[in-house]
Amino acid sequence: MRNLSLLTDLYQLTMGQGYFDEGRHEQIAVFDVFFRPNKTITYSVAAGMEQAAEYLENLRFSADDLAYLKSLGIFTAPYLDYLESLRFTGDAYSVREGEIVFPYEPIFTVKAPMIQAQLVETALLTLINHQTLIASKSVKICAAAGGGVMEFGLRRAQGADAGVYGARAAIIGGCVGTSNVYAGKLFGVPVSGTMAHSWVMNFPSELEAFRAYARSFPENCLLLVDTYDTLRSGVPNAIAVFRELRERGYEPKGIRLDSGDLAYLSKKARAALDEAGFPQAKICASGDLDEYSIRSLKEQGAKIDIWGVGTKLITSADMPALGGVYKLAAVYEGDREIPKIKLSDTAEKITNPGLKEVYRLYDNQTGKAIADYIVRAGERIDESKPLELVHPSDGWKRMTAKNFSARNLRETLIRSGKRVAPAPPLGEIAAYFQKEYARFWAEYKRQDLPHIYKVDLSPALLSLKREMVEALGKGV
Amino acid sequence: MRNLSLLTDLYQLTMGQGYFDEGRHEQIAVFDVFFRPNKTITYSVAAGMEQAAEYLENLRFSADDLAYLKSLGIFTAPYLDYLESLRFTGDAYSVREGEIVFPYEPIFTVKAPMIQAQLVETALLTLINHQTLIASKSVKICAAAGGGVMEFGLRRAQGADAGVYGARAAIIGGCVGTSNVYAGKLFGVPVSGTMAHSWVMNFPSELEAFRAYARSFPENCLLLVDTYDTLRSGVPNAIAVFRELRERGYEPKGIRLDSGDLAYLSKKARAALDEAGFPQAKICASGDLDEYSIRSLKEQGAKIDIWGVGTKLITSADMPALGGVYKLAAVYEGDREIPKIKLSDTAEKITNPGLKEVYRLYDNQTGKAIADYIVRAGERIDESKPLELVHPSDGWKRMTAKNFSARNLRETLIRSGKRVAPAPPLGEIAAYFQKEYARFWAEYKRQDLPHIYKVDLSPALLSLKREMVEALGKGV
Repeated sequence: MRNLSLLTDLYQLTMGQGYFDEGRHEQIAVFDVFFRPNKTITYSVAAGMEQAAEYLENLRFSADDLAYLKSLGIFTAPYLDYLESLRFTGDAYSVREGEIVFPYEPIFTVKAPMIQAQLVETALLTLINHQTLIASKSVKICAAAGGGVMEFGLRRAQGADAGVYGARAAIIGGCVGTSNVYAGKLFGVPVSGTMAHSWVMNFPSELEAFRAYARSFPENCLLLVDTYDTLRSGVPNAIAVFRELRERGYEPKGIRLDSGDLAYLSKKARAALDEAGFPQAKICASGDLDEYSIRSLKEQGAKIDIWGVGTKLITSADMPALGGVYKLAAVYEGDREIPKIKLSDTAEKITNPGLKEVYRLYDNQTGKAIADYIVRAGERIDESKPLELVHPSDGWKRMTAKNFSARNLRETLIRSGKRVAPAPPLGEIAAYFQKEYARFWAEYKRQDLPHIYKVDLSPALLSLKREMVEALGKGV
Repeated sequence: MRNLSLLTDLYQLTMGQGYFDEGRHEQIAVFDVFFRPNKTITYSVAAGMEQAAEYLENLRFSADDLAYLKSLGIFTAPYLDYLESLRFTGDAYSVREGEIVFPYEPIFTVKAPMIQAQLVETALLTLINHQTLIASKSVKICAAAGGGVMEFGLRRAQGADAGVYGARAAIIGGCVGTSNVYAGKLFGVPVSGTMAHSWVMNFPSELEAFRAYARSFPENCLLLVDTYDTLRSGVPNAIAVFRELRERGYEPKGIRLDSGDLAYLSKKARAALDEAGFPQAKICASGDLDEYSIRSLKEQGAKIDIWGVGTKLITSADMPALGGVYKLAAVYEGDREIPKIKLSDTAEKITNPGLKEVYRLYDNQTGKAIADYIVRAGERIDESKPLELVHPSDGWKRMTAKNFSARNLRETLIRSGKRVAPAPPLGEIAAYFQKEYARFWAEYKRQDLPHIYKVDLSPALLSLKREMVEALGKGV
């Protein structure tokens, strides 16, 4: 892994100098990563924690880095010496990758000496914001398609990492594979791809181009049929080559459509393939797809088995940033926690103070998720008794959970600088997401105006918050 | 640099196998990178060529890469042996970074053995699409601000590369610095940053937080004033600390506003600072800014000197992908060029065949750019004679250029696999862009409904295109 230790905003290092000068740099602090609701996203799928853990474990400034910092002329020699030996020695608590998460929930918490906790803010946000964003977009696209989505976006990604880690996140959210070979190698996920238009243009005729491909890949023969004329040339030529393949003892994989009216063309191509005796040949479609166009194509009866989704997935085009934040929740004086709160004129923007845990409550009869419940660290939930849930800002919205099970959503990912949580392979993370996704009612997952899932605060947390807000002179 | 050789789509490698099997993998081919017009962007600022050149020079599959490719079970042993010794041995012709470029212009051309030219498509597009996108967004934002824009977006970037190379591109487009320390080190650009809200929250009072910061950074004292109440607390406390600083012999840098009504707050803060005797103290503003909000703030008379722009710049939020493509333009049989063309039902989407050059014509009297002119490689432009320019698809749109100078926009970046063009430092690239930007009339650069700059084809190129289209049975 590259050394990302300088992947931070300068102000983290200037504040570090300030804390160092004040002798406060080793005071233990707690910061939470969370995101706020917005119109485009009501839930997210956590991702990027694996890269966040790698980053924390490997944090150290190289001699080069320190020489660069010195060259800025704003840091003192004792501070630079301190940075030379700085490692991440704190704890990180995180939800698992693939966990469904909601606004305001602390999905990743750092408890560490102030200077470390501050320094790592930027990279943690970059890594978690990005992958969580793309995993969440992938879920929407895969839900519209009902499966069979391939990630094809590398060339339109915002740089190499966006392509590679975006492919990883897309797989967590439900994509069945990617065209990205680098991601395939790094994460052991299925890669796919056959030919581009340039292949077809490079032969004297489309038929010869298809034949040449079938010679090289008799077992993996998926032909791109829209270079000249999909229905008059591409599909008939593909069928001719499929017949030749079958005579050689191979079955074709299918065809790919990359332009034109995908609804019309796919239906016509499906009929032609079926009639020619190739009902098993798949139809793959690509070209500026997203959850909206896929849903529309399906409504029109398009016969598409595999969806190649590029730009709009890999950039999360309609919302290209998640906007997760990293906010101070507490500092410690010795073992004593001093909760911290950030006020705002908008009640929803006031942060939740103190070290916290997040529980998900499931109905024991249906197995479905009822609500999430944020508590102060160490609070116990008694599953044997009904639990009253109160809306955090609209106190008149209440419900009582009965016969439920509570699950702590977070685990200790890093303890004293060392990773302690397992690092599951990507396939396992993707499967975990699917399992958990099935435990949410469709009402929370629909594309248009989804029902808002409850995320409530425990009475202890709510009263701490209220006291702090009042002490600071503002009402909730 | 990381080894990005596997940063490609699988189909490049399957086509490679096919060409290898056909014995055509070393046929010389020409591919052009260009982009098409869209509603959001009428011109772009070329960037990413430096990273593209590094990538081409370093192309080689590691033993690990080859083991991974072998594990896919779809490639032959002779082909994998061939890939082991594969390097980029071709040529690349490119516009300079910082060059203003227009739709349809070949901004980067690869002439190389087919298998290499195909393999590098994906990474070249990723690198050039990304940085060109962000540089172009940066130009718009900087034009709205009229200078003083800082890039602050790392935490919202789509991964580490998007943050680092996005910062690079933002500087090319006109930003004067970045908060991103990694980018600062890599590209030698100014970095800036002072404090976050957490700093202020970590002291018993805002005043004490400001004083502590001023102790550590008396020469670089820029205070964040919106943690509690900008006008009643933040600005008065900042002024108190600025007075103390002045007594110690230092002048303050200024204040930063990160929330609230930036127009109102900046005017009030400006008045307070001026009245207190700090007219030189700068006001920096941040918080979800882009070219639209900046223009609106300026119309409202906001008193903002430095604009910290994050999410919407680093993701190019209203258009998060450029959509540049890479299209086959020719193959060679020996020394003979065989031009290639990709048809489409839409005249504008038909590609320009053959190896080409791009000239920019400047009016000798005004020094301003008149039009760009795409020619077949080797065509000479006689500056001593009037040149008739014909619109490529609407033949009745014509103009005649007189008393002009023509400049070839492209240089040989890589020859036979080796970089031959200089690699200017980033500051020089940014200065080059500013110089060239000044040579375009404001009509082409305005935000709303800009005038469309002319990009015409030479008669020789246009007739080649027409002949090829007719031969393939479609009229332009």
